[in-house]
Amino acid sequence: MLETPYVAVDVDVLDRNLAGMAAVARERGLGLRPHAKTHKCLEIARRQVEHGATGLTVATVSEAEVFAGGGFDDLFIAYPIWPSPGRAERLRALAGRVALRVGVDSAESAEALSAAVGPLDVLVEIDSGHHRSGVRPADAVRVAEAAERAGHRVRGIFTFPGHGYAPGQQHTAALDEAAALSAADLGDGVRSGGSTPTAPLAEGGALTEIRPGVYVFGDAQQVELGGCGWDDVALTVVATVVSRTGNRVIVDAGSKVLGADRLAWATGFGRLPEHPDARIVALSEHHATIEFPAEPPARGDVLRIAPNHVCATVNLADELVVVRGGAEADRWRVAARGANT
Amino acid sequence: MLETPYVAVDVDVLDRNLAGMAAVARERGLGLRPHAKTHKCLEIARRQVEHGATGLTVATVSEAEVFAGGGFDDLFIAYPIWPSPGRAERLRALAGRVALRVGVDSAESAEALSAAVGPLDVLVEIDSGHHRSGVRPADAVRVAEAAERAGHRVRGIFTFPGHGYAPGQQHTAALDEAAALSAADLGDGVRSGGSTPTAPLAEGGALTEIRPGVYVFGDAQQVELGGCGWDDVALTVVATVVSRTGNRVIVDAGSKVLGADRLAWATGFGRLPEHPDARIVALSEHHATIEFPAEPPARGDVLRIAPNHVCATVNLADELVVVRGGAEADRWRVAARGANT
Repeated sequence: MLETPYVAVDVDVLDRNLAGMAAVARERGLGLRPHAKTHKCLEIARRQVEHGATGLTVATVSEAEVFAGGGFDDLFIAYPIWPSPGRAERLRALAGRVALRVGVDSAESAEALSAAVGPLDVLVEIDSGHHRSGVRPADAVRVAEAAERAGHRVRGIFTFPGHGYAPGQQHTAALDEAAALSAADLGDGVRSGGSTPTAPLAEGGALTEIRPGVYVFGDAQQVELGGCGWDDVALTVVATVVSRTGNRVIVDAGSKVLGADRLAWATGFGRLPEHPDARIVALSEHHATIEFPAEPPARGDVLRIAPNHVCATVNLADELVVVRGGAEADRWRVAARGANT
Repeated sequence: MLETPYVAVDVDVLDRNLAGMAAVARERGLGLRPHAKTHKCLEIARRQVEHGATGLTVATVSEAEVFAGGGFDDLFIAYPIWPSPGRAERLRALAGRVALRVGVDSAESAEALSAAVGPLDVLVEIDSGHHRSGVRPADAVRVAEAAERAGHRVRGIFTFPGHGYAPGQQHTAALDEAAALSAADLGDGVRSGGSTPTAPLAEGGALTEIRPGVYVFGDAQQVELGGCGWDDVALTVVATVVSRTGNRVIVDAGSKVLGADRLAWATGFGRLPEHPDARIVALSEHHATIEFPAEPPARGDVLRIAPNHVCATVNLADELVVVRGGAEADRWRVAARGANT
């Protein structure tokens, strides 16, 4: 007996999403190095490799350790890591165990990595318009030269066009990404980009690989951005109606299972694929307040909610309930849940 | 060697906060039944009982199971539970093991609980202005009578004045809470209220007990609401600067450790107690972008961040690093992390 709230993954939809992105990469001649921070599951990473992924992307050293432990031997930590003492030791161990690449975005961090860890395969992070980490394209060569002087092997450059997570901005972000990677080009190395919203727009000439994450599951943000439809959403939180007043109900899934992510343009705190006109107007830790345009569901009814940002939802769950044809088929452990270090 | 990001609790500040709220309750003649959803730790619950708590409040059956397993024998699930089959069985087991109270906010749920679980000690939930679950004060007697007809023992009423989580609204919310509990009064039973912002304003006549949660740790929201100062914040996320451009730095703590909660009036995605003029202007899963008014910290510097909403932060962590006088003194397991069912 499954108790709500739980996180369900429709494995047929998941497989279709995996095949779809693999086809995008293949058709454009791009390497596919999916970001495992979205699913944090060994089972899904294995399916990605079966679909032709050349390796995995992760966000942290501890995520890399989990996937290395699961047998994955080609990992890129797409993050400007600072080598604090414990982290340096773990990076050294990882580099001796798998094909490891890490991000750098300054001469200073390249030198610190060299001193603390030793020579590594590095990619220089470029800011293509998201304005988070990364250097301006014009500074890429300077950082790459510093990294090489520090003893590293510079394998290329990478960027995250995160400004594509806004309505109507995917095409602009994809163009920015291509322009930044072209401007910063270090020669014939890796030019890695491609978030889920921009990956299908990636230009084969400017990029050599894409690192989409969210595409495996989809979420309410992706649907509201127009990147996928409700039928493409593989992961939902299953919840029970516990209270009802007028046209509103409360369900037993709140921010502690859905996550509290809400970008300014979102219509609410998630969406209901079976009730596209309903809106989640408020979210507490264990309550979602859902407004229906007409008669709402009854107490005890079970509803499916697509979270706004699926990466946050997965990181709150210990396991995913794998569903095929509406029936439970398996459980997958969220092996890298909480792997933040 | 502690690796960032990690969640640190200053136990001296924690103890001062526990003593302070216990004094508030004692001076006003109110029972103190703190909400354990904030800390989810057996060690902190034990300290709350040592400070005079008459029992614990929890949000879910699974939280109740964790604290019952830890030896706590007086638990109130302050939630309008719907008795799905598995949940009903677990509630029955709990009620046979500890002094258990649960919330109801409709005749329908009272009847469903009776049919599925049997007679229980219940409190009727009142809406005092937060407009989440709960009935209007005028409907309390009707629900209480239905609960009694269904065989339950009605022990009183409860409310959550959540609309006090907004600047300048604490006093109004406390007045609303007192008015709603007075208007709905069922006689000489429990009248339970009191969130952290409103608890110090609770009127002894209208309430018999308070259920504050956040007070144990404090957080950026509480400081920005004026309810506590930076010296009262016991829990912070410790993070390392990994990137720096102009007056901005990126640290390695993002939404997967801080939580993404951000109420409309918040100044950012958390605050830095040692740098009150700094602002967290953007948050990704593993990046917080922090803007400093002048020279920012250097790469590799370690900073403390008070999250916006500490309940979300704790639920993302497997353990809390307990600090005394700046040095690690212990580790406490977040025993009820992810206990959503």
